[in-house]
Amino acid sequence: MGEQDMSGQDMSGQIVKIVGIGGSLRSDSYSQLALAIAAQRVQALGASVEILDLRQLTLPFCDGGDDYSDFPDVARMQQAVKAADGLILATPEYHGSLSGVLKNALDLMSFDELSGKVAGLISVLGGQSNSNALNDLRVIMRWVHGWVIPEQIAVGQAWKAFDANGNLVDDKLSERFDQFAQSLVENTRKLRSVAV
Amino acid sequence: MGEQDMSGQDMSGQIVKIVGIGGSLRSDSYSQLALAIAAQRVQALGASVEILDLRQLTLPFCDGGDDYSDFPDVARMQQAVKAADGLILATPEYHGSLSGVLKNALDLMSFDELSGKVAGLISVLGGQSNSNALNDLRVIMRWVHGWVIPEQIAVGQAWKAFDANGNLVDDKLSERFDQFAQSLVENTRKLRSVAV
Amino acid sequence: MGEQDMSGQDMSGQIVKIVGIGGSLRSDSYSQLALAIAAQRVQALGASVEILDLRQLTLPFCDGGDDYSDFPDVARMQQAVKAADGLILATPEYHGSLSGVLKNALDLMSFDELSGKVAGLISVLGGQSNSNALNDLRVIMRWVHGWVIPEQIAVGQAWKAFDANGNLVDDKLSERFDQFAQSLVENTRKLRSVAV
Amino acid sequence: MGEQDMSGQDMSGQIVKIVGIGGSLRSDSYSQLALAIAAQRVQALGASVEILDLRQLTLPFCDGGDDYSDFPDVARMQQAVKAADGLILATPEYHGSLSGVLKNALDLMSFDELSGKVAGLISVLGGQSNSNALNDLRVIMRWVHGWVIPEQIAVGQAWKAFDANGNLVDDKLSERFDQFAQSLVENTRKLRSVAV
Repeated sequence: MGEQDMSGQDMSGQIVKIVGIGGSLRSDSYSQLALAIAAQRVQALGASVEILDLRQLTLPFCDGGDDYSDFPDVARMQQAVKAADGLILATPEYHGSLSGVLKNALDLMSFDELSGKVAGLISVLGGQSNSNALNDLRVIMRWVHGWVIPEQIAVGQAWKAFDANGNLVDDKLSERFDQFAQSLVENTRKLRSVAV
Repeated sequence: MGEQDMSGQDMSGQIVKIVGIGGSLRSDSYSQLALAIAAQRVQALGASVEILDLRQLTLPFCDGGDDYSDFPDVARMQQAVKAADGLILATPEYHGSLSGVLKNALDLMSFDELSGKVAGLISVLGGQSNSNALNDLRVIMRWVHGWVIPEQIAVGQAWKAFDANGNLVDDKLSERFDQFAQSLVENTRKLRSVAV
Repeated sequence: MGEQDMSGQDMSGQIVKIVGIGGSLRSDSYSQLALAIAAQRVQALGASVEILDLRQLTLPFCDGGDDYSDFPDVARMQQAVKAADGLILATPEYHGSLSGVLKNALDLMSFDELSGKVAGLISVLGGQSNSNALNDLRVIMRWVHGWVIPEQIAVGQAWKAFDANGNLVDDKLSERFDQFAQSLVENTRKLRSVAV
Repeated sequence: MGEQDMSGQDMSGQIVKIVGIGGSLRSDSYSQLALAIAAQRVQALGASVEILDLRQLTLPFCDGGDDYSDFPDVARMQQAVKAADGLILATPEYHGSLSGVLKNALDLMSFDELSGKVAGLISVLGGQSNSNALNDLRVIMRWVHGWVIPEQIAVGQAWKAFDANGNLVDDKLSERFDQFAQSLVENTRKLRSVAV
């Protein structure tokens, strides 16, 4: 299939839109650092990325209802996610799972926003790496009929994973971010194409 | 072993203290109904129960830090849980996992409060019953070195599970609550005993 | 887009090849029935399907090694899966997870065969439906860098799910098999396409 | 409380009986090494331990039925587990879960053998440690109404974890085996006591 055909067929020439959400409210958050690195690499591949920084949004606790009109950031988040093709979800691993902060943000959305989206998952831990938070997130994203790419990243011992400029110290880990970005952009393009 | 010996030996004559936490903020929450029923039956077996209603506590989102002095309900929750022998955790299943509200409450605590506690788990769903939220909670409680009793309860199609007085409609489900309460009280007593 | 265009564009004219593996050795296995139904619907959409019936293969227990030359069915299974684009994995839920029989068959394969494959998951239960086996399979397939479609099927109370001819009794469940087959064929085509 | 009192009170003077099952068939299995170390330490605390070495038992694949009279080792395994108070389950982590070999052995048993037992879980990995196999085993053991102690062990990079004599190289890991054994024996005694 020629490239000229491709651009017209799969996503009508549109750029892949990725929204990144970080599940930590810490001021010096390693999750947000990891998210920023992933976002950079996704952009370098020609996708657009919007970061929703939960530290800057005013979100309520989900009460199981639909009316969050007192909190305009709920609608803002919902619209950004709804308009996206793919997601990067980055979370600290707290108590062997994703943060309540990130789960609550996801609880404020539903199939309308999340169904059919292609997600890449990142977790950040103080101790040895583990995939508990990633496993829980994977099942959660499936529950809302989303896709999750196989390339997931758990950053263990996060306190020594980044240098003073917020760059990754370990080259192998950096390569994993490259593969993550590559897979997210390429497979979002494939899965979101209308007619292959 | 006679009862008089027991009281002196296992828990120094103290009553088993259970704290219940419900993970829903809905005003007409089925999780809170289920929690109330479990609490009643646990009390009927001679244990004390304190319900921490998250709708009445003012908790912040966990920011990964230790200082929540602006929110006295954090310390109140921590102290109640720390003083407890066992826990009942009741959550709505949102997106195939526990609610962000409950996870955030757990994130505000740590080993100090949760380690060694004996927990019973309940989930409440709108659709068919499922054990996703219960599985995630089980792994979370282990992560903080807690125990989880095998008798767990998933209340499916919650909208038809309770009558107008908040009682369970189905006798078999009601029996499961009896077994849940029996196991929680008996095994908390055993596991919390100092010297068996 | 017409069928003639499609066949020439996405996968260089190749038909999507699906291999189905059933994780039950029971002679009257409901998993095998469910697998057969899924296979039929996948074929009706133009894909080819080969069923690997573990009841007819002679597989050893995996001993962690590489040499299974005494069991030619190991190589046969490996080659069939390696040549496939996608998989249907159907398992009875035993003790809240997939069958050891199916896990052992997967243990006999590795990245060579499984990486990059697109899988659809089905579980069959005697009691109420549950997604434990499906969740475990989802994490397992990711571990070998496979994809899993969001549309998964748990057939609860399998003893009353099929009629005497092996057809599904419930229309809604039948629709889920249609959506499952549709998603598996369409998304395997997309994800396996070389250049979108 | 003195030791002489203890022996007479909790379990009617009976010694805690532990059965260990290793989920690897490799001749130089690290899981079996880890199991042997755990067994030694459990014995040092006064419990009895019987190891069921699956390399020496002739077990069939579970076919979902009840009649395994052609394989007397099935009954032998069932009887040993049924007579036990607690279990040590040690598995290699294959493809992000327990081995099919171990799952199949568990599939050959049921509530009769497994319900109420207190289990300690160990996994062994070639790469970085992870708790996927342990999580799956935890949910499986709960499914059959067993208990699982919080102290679980994942031995990462197993090829460098043991010295030539099969002893643990790392002192911190060795301490974890001590805590594991301590918890398993003590809490099995508590949970299996008739009247606390």
